Amino acid sequence: MKQVRFGIIGVGNMGGAHARTLAGGKIDGAVLAAVADIVPDRIAKIRGELPETVRYFDSAEAMMDSGAIDAVLVAVPHYEHPRLAMAGLARGLHVLVEKPAGVYTAQVREMNKAALGHPELKFGIMFNNRTNPVYIRMHDMVAAGELGEIKRTSWIITDWYRSQSYYDSGSWRATWKGEGGGVLLNQCPHNLDLWQWIVGMMPSRIRAFCHEGKWHDIEVEDDVTAYVEYPNGATGTFVTTTADTPGTNRFEITGDRGKLVAEEGRLVFHRLAVPEREWNATYKGGFGQPAVERIEIDTSGDFPNHAGILRDFTRAVITGDPLWAPGIEGIRSLEISNAMHLSSWLDKTVELPVDEACYFELLQEKIAASAEKSGADATLDLKGSF
Amino acid sequence: MKQVRFGIIGVGNMGGAHARTLAGGKIDGAVLAAVADIVPDRIAKIRGELPETVRYFDSAEAMMDSGAIDAVLVAVPHYEHPRLAMAGLARGLHVLVEKPAGVYTAQVREMNKAALGHPELKFGIMFNNRTNPVYIRMHDMVAAGELGEIKRTSWIITDWYRSQSYYDSGSWRATWKGEGGGVLLNQCPHNLDLWQWIVGMMPSRIRAFCHEGKWHDIEVEDDVTAYVEYPNGATGTFVTTTADTPGTNRFEITGDRGKLVAEEGRLVFHRLAVPEREWNATYKGGFGQPAVERIEIDTSGDFPNHAGILRDFTRAVITGDPLWAPGIEGIRSLEISNAMHLSSWLDKTVELPVDEACYFELLQEKIAASAEKSGADATLDLKGSF
Repeated sequence: MKQVRFGIIGVGNMGGAHARTLAGGKIDGAVLAAVADIVPDRIAKIRGELPETVRYFDSAEAMMDSGAIDAVLVAVPHYEHPRLAMAGLARGLHVLVEKPAGVYTAQVREMNKAALGHPELKFGIMFNNRTNPVYIRMHDMVAAGELGEIKRTSWIITDWYRSQSYYDSGSWRATWKGEGGGVLLNQCPHNLDLWQWIVGMMPSRIRAFCHEGKWHDIEVEDDVTAYVEYPNGATGTFVTTTADTPGTNRFEITGDRGKLVAEEGRLVFHRLAVPEREWNATYKGGFGQPAVERIEIDTSGDFPNHAGILRDFTRAVITGDPLWAPGIEGIRSLEISNAMHLSSWLDKTVELPVDEACYFELLQEKIAASAEKSGADATLDLKGSF
Repeated sequence: MKQVRFGIIGVGNMGGAHARTLAGGKIDGAVLAAVADIVPDRIAKIRGELPETVRYFDSAEAMMDSGAIDAVLVAVPHYEHPRLAMAGLARGLHVLVEKPAGVYTAQVREMNKAALGHPELKFGIMFNNRTNPVYIRMHDMVAAGELGEIKRTSWIITDWYRSQSYYDSGSWRATWKGEGGGVLLNQCPHNLDLWQWIVGMMPSRIRAFCHEGKWHDIEVEDDVTAYVEYPNGATGTFVTTTADTPGTNRFEITGDRGKLVAEEGRLVFHRLAVPEREWNATYKGGFGQPAVERIEIDTSGDFPNHAGILRDFTRAVITGDPLWAPGIEGIRSLEISNAMHLSSWLDKTVELPVDEACYFELLQEKIAASAEKSGADATLDLKGSF
């Protein structure tokens, strides 16, 4: 394959942005071949911005059956990701899904199983923050053992500010029925993914405190504090909200050989001359700590963001090489957010993997109690927000 | 009174340092008149460094009954603080106690009651970090309403590194019997006090995860993560350990009108042009946040530390004016640490004020199971640690 013909399902907020990126010729080897949306208005709105060669469909299935595309990009509300991804795979299409992978792990596990059954097809997920040079450096340093054994992680990621008007812009937004969660499902899949990707471990236990509709007139959580424990004994915290402004994005990882801190675009590594565990065992002076070197890590370089994932996915389809953000890894961040919800609902610590049936049942209760929201579904200007 | 004659009970680590400060003439209006210690070796060791006028006693009571002193500084292991403070007050002496105020709130409540019964006597506590210009600025800014209603607090205070040799230096150290706790009782009373003093609120609920002997061969906790809720709905986190190096000291407070962050000696205020709650209710643009001004707060100025508290206490005794760090406020940080212990022991969220009887009972169980430690009681060089 020399050129990958993309079809996009859903051209609302994110799907529309991806359509423009592909149509703009910014992705070598990729072409926007088709678009499907069940809302005619959305197609009418974007049509003028796209090349005349693009074909339009009022159903995802019709587009996937048309033979016009090689790969499908799924950019619809979260609940539909697994179903449409599986429909694409079943038709021999490469699939790139928006985050989150789904709303509950049972459905995502099924999607992953389908993907593993099609090794000839690429299955990717839009974890565009994995193309951020700051996070790539952190990932690489931890993977290379520069921090030694991980002891503590702390991410204060409260810079996802949203005002009430954001939530009022879509009837599906911030409802159990429409999104299946709040800040954890809409804004934080990136961070939850990066957290486990960079640290290189999934938590084994989580105690979370999710506050639903605390700062906004919404059903779902808009304020979360979570404490986690890892299999190796390390601990961590994750704090997020959509109500803090100016928010904070500070990610700290402490290991036996030093500490890594990312904040305000800077990455600082504090490298120990002697590993802490060794110092603890051998130093005899009471007070005193190993010498430490403070190193500013170079984080310059391109941050291609969504275009980076589209580019990598296209490359992988053409060359057959592995993906930077494999779709089957999408379950990890979802597993973490499901565990946070479940811990909060049950008011106790939960073990991972979570009890999927219990989570699903409680989610259905939330959905059943979900109130219908009135108001128009606006398409928002997404500049500066992902 | 023109000059306050101090007697110090206990001239081990901290008491010895205070004796030298007073003897060095660094505190206007204060004179070191006497010293009491039950360990003759400690007196023998410090005697040569102190003026010839200083009197020595082998019991606190004998010194307090001698008529040689006007004020007593209590610098013995934590459990004895309330008993000796009350003994001093009962003899008409002004009392300055080292932190923590005690080990469990029941005994501290009794001490406070005794102090309130003697309004003619000053009763202070060695919260020397209340003289740090960074924390004074934070306190004053919150008190002046510059942050508006508090929404979130986060203190990562992991820069209390101690190696195993520190714990091995005293048979009472890091035992339930000798200290009644670990990092929360020995290192963190300062931070727990500053946390409530600066924020201006006590938490109403606490869920903590205390890990006992996780990083050191000790009985007590050396790693703590706590989540708190305040009466106004705000939440907070507090993370501490004696095993991280280089540790972190980052204290963030988010309010309706902005955010205050202290780290690495710098204090930055992010001031909002429009309060967040007002913006949330009135802004109609979906994404978007109020304008924010980043202000570096001047934190220069003297940080007199222990000498500052000695100076303030002396001044208050002479003038009768209020203390900067009143002893009766010592119960607050202890209440918080007791709640953290209790939450962890019970493995559930606890409400404040804690169930004192339950706490006391569980503490007795810990003490009963406490193993005797062997090894000499060394006097450590405290430079750079408090």
